[in-house]
Amino acid sequence: MTETLAISERTRLRRARERGYFDRETIYGILDAMPLCNVGYVIDGSPVVMPTFQWREGDHVYWHASSGGRGIKAAEGSQVCLTVALLDGLVLARSGLHHSANFRSVMVFGTPEKITDPEQKAAKLDGLIDHLYPGRKETLRPMTDDEAKQTAVLSLPIEEASAKLRTGGPVDDEEDYALPIWAGVIPVKMQIMPPEPDPRNLDGVEVPDFVKSMTLG
Amino acid sequence: MTETLAISERTRLRRARERGYFDRETIYGILDAMPLCNVGYVIDGSPVVMPTFQWREGDHVYWHASSGGRGIKAAEGSQVCLTVALLDGLVLARSGLHHSANFRSVMVFGTPEKITDPEQKAAKLDGLIDHLYPGRKETLRPMTDDEAKQTAVLSLPIEEASAKLRTGGPVDDEEDYALPIWAGVIPVKMQIMPPEPDPRNLDGVEVPDFVKSMTLG
Repeated sequence: MTETLAISERTRLRRARERGYFDRETIYGILDAMPLCNVGYVIDGSPVVMPTFQWREGDHVYWHASSGGRGIKAAEGSQVCLTVALLDGLVLARSGLHHSANFRSVMVFGTPEKITDPEQKAAKLDGLIDHLYPGRKETLRPMTDDEAKQTAVLSLPIEEASAKLRTGGPVDDEEDYALPIWAGVIPVKMQIMPPEPDPRNLDGVEVPDFVKSMTLG
Repeated sequence: MTETLAISERTRLRRARERGYFDRETIYGILDAMPLCNVGYVIDGSPVVMPTFQWREGDHVYWHASSGGRGIKAAEGSQVCLTVALLDGLVLARSGLHHSANFRSVMVFGTPEKITDPEQKAAKLDGLIDHLYPGRKETLRPMTDDEAKQTAVLSLPIEEASAKLRTGGPVDDEEDYALPIWAGVIPVKMQIMPPEPDPRNLDGVEVPDFVKSMTLG
């Protein structure tokens, strides 16, 4: 049975509460579907939202950045909000107000920790590669110590988190169903396109198998 | 000639400076390509990143939310950061470190204003519909006063803003090009799928023309 997280003042939905989910299964499913996230920091008192890749291992979410970057400096020991949002469809209703979007989103709140142990950091960065590209890590040369130093990895426990999602067609005011207006959903989907090999690939080096089964979103 | 924005402490790139763009043409192009954005607020001292739709008119960016929502309360008269991020491809290099992503992103910083004048607000909400669905607004019934009251519209001047983007293939360390590792780009793309009409559409109501020419991203 999937564990349900406690609802906090930050994760409680003020409206459209039927769209809120607090169980780990739903939250993990959305985090695992899309590496692109937006991390919010407070820097000099004002919000900064930086896009980056996240990946999940167990009950933690991880992201990385340049060791000297602003986000890393702002994040360590401070509250962040990591948000993943996937657009699934445009919902066209019979009135302007009821136009909507189908989406899946997750917000994770908390104070991240910087992973400083070199071995642990290397393992986490391998985890990023493996999460995105199963089996690829073993085919790469090992990371050098200098490369590991350039990269900082942040770790955030998934404890104060929520998912929000909308699915399905438009919901109109009852009297508006009599109007001769087209209503419905325009689904949108992230598609993986055919790979573009680097011109400097060596002869005989083939596209890896994981590319053929990749999905995003 | 496109105007170039002044670089601020918040928009200055600390690294990979060749990826930064400060001209309105580049910034507007990214904002116009994708309505999905993530707005960062500071609420009770900690960051909150909320996905929503944005749209641009001239040198302002707009978004809307429930009048009673947390974001609206936090945004009025306070600094926000509105970020749009589009993933264009996964970049696979010959070392872990040089794996990357092709992307386009924009960050807009500033203090938004709430549009309180009812007529101006209605005009802006019409602008959202028209921006996403050209020609649709004229086919809908007018918004009621009560509907307009439920929705708040925020307006942010595009003055302190930057774009960041990466294109092209992997860039490896010179000695790594001798390794028999597949490198290249896996492009990803938002696709518009065939529309799903609402089962309660009236007989003879056809899919609007704009659906056929829609693009996202």
